[in-house]
Amino acid sequence: MPQSVSVGEGKLVIDSSFTVSANGHSEPELQVAVARLVSQVGRQTGIPIQGGPHPTLIIDCPCAAPGYPSLDDDESYTLDVTPEAAHLSAHSVMGVRHGIQTFSQLIAPGAQSFFVPTVHIEDRPRFPWRGLMLDVSRHWMPPQVIRRNLDAMAAVKFNVFHWHLSDDQGFRVESKLFPKLHELGSDGHFYTQDEIRAVVAYARERGIRVVPEFDIPGHTTAWFVGYPELAAGAGPFQIERNWGIFEPTLDISREQVYTFLDALLGEMAALFPDPYFHIGGDEVVDREWRENPAIQAFERNQGIPDSAGLHAYFNRRVQQLLAKHGKKMVGWDEVLAPGLTNDVVIQSWRGQKSLRDAALKGYRGILSFGYYLDHVRPAAFHYAVDPLGAEAKELDSQHAPLILGGEACMWTEYVTEDTVDSRLWPRAAAIAERLWSSASVNDTSDMYRRLESISRWLDGFGVQHHSGYDRMLERLAGDRPAPALRVLADAVEAVGIDTRQEARHYSSFIPLNRLVDAARPESETVHELSELLDRSISDPARHQSDLERVRAAFSQWQANVGLLKPIIENNFLLAEAAQISENLSKTGTIGLRGLRFLESGQRPPSDWTTTAQKELNEMEQPHAEVVLAAVRPVKTLIEVISQPASLSGRATGNHAGGRDK
Amino acid sequence: MPQSVSVGEGKLVIDSSFTVSANGHSEPELQVAVARLVSQVGRQTGIPIQGGPHPTLIIDCPCAAPGYPSLDDDESYTLDVTPEAAHLSAHSVMGVRHGIQTFSQLIAPGAQSFFVPTVHIEDRPRFPWRGLMLDVSRHWMPPQVIRRNLDAMAAVKFNVFHWHLSDDQGFRVESKLFPKLHELGSDGHFYTQDEIRAVVAYARERGIRVVPEFDIPGHTTAWFVGYPELAAGAGPFQIERNWGIFEPTLDISREQVYTFLDALLGEMAALFPDPYFHIGGDEVVDREWRENPAIQAFERNQGIPDSAGLHAYFNRRVQQLLAKHGKKMVGWDEVLAPGLTNDVVIQSWRGQKSLRDAALKGYRGILSFGYYLDHVRPAAFHYAVDPLGAEAKELDSQHAPLILGGEACMWTEYVTEDTVDSRLWPRAAAIAERLWSSASVNDTSDMYRRLESISRWLDGFGVQHHSGYDRMLERLAGDRPAPALRVLADAVEAVGIDTRQEARHYSSFIPLNRLVDAARPESETVHELSELLDRSISDPARHQSDLERVRAAFSQWQANVGLLKPIIENNFLLAEAAQISENLSKTGTIGLRGLRFLESGQRPPSDWTTTAQKELNEMEQPHAEVVLAAVRPVKTLIEVISQPASLSGRATGNHAGGRDK
Repeated sequence: MPQSVSVGEGKLVIDSSFTVSANGHSEPELQVAVARLVSQVGRQTGIPIQGGPHPTLIIDCPCAAPGYPSLDDDESYTLDVTPEAAHLSAHSVMGVRHGIQTFSQLIAPGAQSFFVPTVHIEDRPRFPWRGLMLDVSRHWMPPQVIRRNLDAMAAVKFNVFHWHLSDDQGFRVESKLFPKLHELGSDGHFYTQDEIRAVVAYARERGIRVVPEFDIPGHTTAWFVGYPELAAGAGPFQIERNWGIFEPTLDISREQVYTFLDALLGEMAALFPDPYFHIGGDEVVDREWRENPAIQAFERNQGIPDSAGLHAYFNRRVQQLLAKHGKKMVGWDEVLAPGLTNDVVIQSWRGQKSLRDAALKGYRGILSFGYYLDHVRPAAFHYAVDPLGAEAKELDSQHAPLILGGEACMWTEYVTEDTVDSRLWPRAAAIAERLWSSASVNDTSDMYRRLESISRWLDGFGVQHHSGYDRMLERLAGDRPAPALRVLADAVEAVGIDTRQEARHYSSFIPLNRLVDAARPESETVHELSELLDRSISDPARHQSDLERVRAAFSQWQANVGLLKPIIENNFLLAEAAQISENLSKTGTIGLRGLRFLESGQRPPSDWTTTAQKELNEMEQPHAEVVLAAVRPVKTLIEVISQPASLSGRATGNHAGGRDK
Repeated sequence: MPQSVSVGEGKLVIDSSFTVSANGHSEPELQVAVARLVSQVGRQTGIPIQGGPHPTLIIDCPCAAPGYPSLDDDESYTLDVTPEAAHLSAHSVMGVRHGIQTFSQLIAPGAQSFFVPTVHIEDRPRFPWRGLMLDVSRHWMPPQVIRRNLDAMAAVKFNVFHWHLSDDQGFRVESKLFPKLHELGSDGHFYTQDEIRAVVAYARERGIRVVPEFDIPGHTTAWFVGYPELAAGAGPFQIERNWGIFEPTLDISREQVYTFLDALLGEMAALFPDPYFHIGGDEVVDREWRENPAIQAFERNQGIPDSAGLHAYFNRRVQQLLAKHGKKMVGWDEVLAPGLTNDVVIQSWRGQKSLRDAALKGYRGILSFGYYLDHVRPAAFHYAVDPLGAEAKELDSQHAPLILGGEACMWTEYVTEDTVDSRLWPRAAAIAERLWSSASVNDTSDMYRRLESISRWLDGFGVQHHSGYDRMLERLAGDRPAPALRVLADAVEAVGIDTRQEARHYSSFIPLNRLVDAARPESETVHELSELLDRSISDPARHQSDLERVRAAFSQWQANVGLLKPIIENNFLLAEAAQISENLSKTGTIGLRGLRFLESGQRPPSDWTTTAQKELNEMEQPHAEVVLAAVRPVKTLIEVISQPASLSGRATGNHAGGRDK
């Protein structure tokens, strides 16, 4: 949602004569952005764009010699659409790119043609750091997965790709200086340096900075497979296959480790033009430090009181190394300790309080607390989290700008290249809006309405959050069409990391090919049904057709168990879904009965209500690592019909209306 | 369907320990094929394949130094699966590749795990030339579209990719000798020579020969934009934007043209290692020859009696040029004329009679008549066409082997990169089976059952015949979820080139982004419903749940018009679908009434039947370039219930059973 929008009368037609012209200084990066828009318009509309004599979109931008995208870029733009043409003006290519995305977002099929509405937009981001972190260590993500997600990121105006490239489960970049890092630490799943450069160039073309993360001194098991001499503990080491927090840690008391890091960070720094470089620094387990006599001796000699002090010493040294290679340090909350120069940026998984405290000491910060997409919470949950909310609200106008923005995070214990798109999109777009739009843009139901449309628009950028769904369901069903499986999957929601890690012992060897992996984080079907039901309840007479659609859905749920049974039988992947399929049927049955009470205006017998509510509450618990979202609208229904007549004003009034019909 | 299959007891488990080992001579091409299988098994099952100590699949193949895939390759293989391991033996890498595809096709989810059934298969192709022709001139197909379709081709054991690279609408290959061919003749949509080489290598890895086609002397308008001096008629020339047969033709009386062709064919021949080279030769319009005095003079001087003779002269010269560059000529029916050496291969769009006649003269041939996928006929139609059927049946054992096989053809007047996958798959697989399997494998309903499964399996190779469907429907609907549009689209079928070219004036400027383009060639939904209905009719009592599913579908059709209305309104792309949406509803209403008669055992009043049948017949006509497939099962139903009781033995008997329930 732009900072300011005013919609006028009339429409700008989009057809095969679509043409873009650039006034002012034209420049290769601008031309690339324009060419991408033209091909995007073609894809979005299916129209072969031929161009024409009169420009549809006129771009005005000095755009002289843009460098690598930067935190200081002026990203603002103005888009003015009239029935004759659209005018986009901006101070930088960044602004043009954003304006182009807004323009393409506005294209819709109308009564006569595709069109863009007449509109005047003034827009600029609220925060300059709007990122998405992707962990490619726990599950490998090939370059094409990165590329399509960069396209989707650019579409929703994210401008930082934070690439979590090493962890206990894998070191994912080719190192020419220390080849055993990727040769022994990646199972062969690593990016060559050419691939890294290609991804960085691809991101740059889309106005996205790439910030690499090499997590140190913990989260380094994969390093030690090739270089055990760097470790604080005794080897031998193997690539970690489990999820959790592990003990292997760099021996940061040894000068040799700093020599190694100097060379490695230098090599890696040269691959990434961005001035920021992420060193992780989180979840350091100090047992090996405490049990290693040499490290303990080092602490004593240096007058370092404890492990926290040792970690702080390490961070100061690393910051100096990075500075030598022209980089500013970014780290998780834990890196913040006395002695760091204040160009460090703190990424907080702990919350706004951390950021406030850091800001008061003069440190800049970005928020990730509340933006962990792998927790698989609703978009509304993330949408409500504000980098300047909670304790950060207290910051004055001098310190508030130290909060640079935030980053959505995708840790991939339970996410593979098959499922990552559906775990990211469309929910990440809600975070993108939180970081771009005004804090006062916070109407959740309006957000969901727009998110639905964005989700479909994003599909045209190649991300497979839609198309991967059917593919995974068909793999589950074997080789037959299985609409009944889709009915079930549409009615459930995947759970996140918390529930999954309790459900069974997972590791990188465990396939992620089950119903929970296919299921979406939020059920669009149930969301829509809830809205239909709310309308029906508020006025059944006026919304008779909505009520019929709700009834049809409940009937379908009720009947689905029978249709799904032959598919589930003898299918080891789906056996676990038998109970939830039964539950969906039961939910449908309760819902149908509830609708009859709603229509008759009669209050249900209280024992029926009690039983129904108890069953619904039970069925709302996760089974087979999915939640039966279908329960939610039925619970609402039961709540409404079971209220005393005097309290259920809306419903009672409507029943009268319904009976009059 | 293999030449021989026997299924045993027990299952071979496929899990993360899946491992392939190769006995005998191991060789890079074999290793590549094995690596592809392993990654395919991972994709197909979602299991991270780790490998293990005991091989799951053991390959036995001498496989020494395979060359480029050839018409003479021994493609046979034997696959023997026991609960302990699978053994694949073959004489060549080609055989191994085919056996690997069969193996992967057999993987299914079972009660305990993914598995392959115990089975013994002896297999070899019936024909050595099993091709797919793709026209990339009328609509441009980028390299990634080619690659994913090569993957799907290899999966169903096609072994020739016939690449139709030039036509009136575009010359699609970079020529370094004559750069104006691609610079002026392709709108910038051409393959660089590097891209060509990469595709050829990609195909080769999959055991697919690439046969290029440069259509001459007609179909050459795009050549003349850059080189008008080659033309028989006067310029200037423009890339042709319309569909049809056009007059511009090479001036084949001029020696300069042969000099040009010698150089160009030499340049192109070097890009394609296959010994066969296709020169088109079809649909030559001779008006320009007849009206050009110099050409007429040439004919007189040479004693050439007419245009047919001139074309024959040209083909002899071209065959000599090709021979000089190490290539054997392939051409459409029209090239066959006296004087050609008998290494020419005739591709027949005319029929088996042409091939028989050619064979009797000693010429080899391949069939494409009946395999034109752009006609959008049912898979069953193509499946019934046999290269050795019709007149070719008469060939004796000496001449029959001259029929090398056949090629499915995809001309792309009405097909874009968005829709080509759904126009090819799964129907092309039925042709692939016709060309591979025994002539006696011709049970259509069994073919459809297996095709459904193959269609889903192919999805894992990246072709987008499934995933593109939702994408196109969502583009049509604008930005909202539109299940009602999918209900309509599921119930209709796209029409082919004949109906489309009559429906409106198309050209390469006309977008192919409408319901007909999203709609599938064959409705799986209607196919399944017809089967349910057939079972219900044969014995309603035993198949009560099938009958309920049919009723649910008819009800959904009936109600769909109301749900779709708000989506169609104000949408110029969908306005044309209003009538067909009404018709679907009417079809549902007739169907529901028909079911009530079926269940009651009463014959409907004859005036109702007459009206219903008349309406159904009308509704079966194409509207908006789609056919309402939903009509078919309802017509069958009306036919059954309207038969006199004495004749409708099955139905009457069943009604009694139904009533007993």
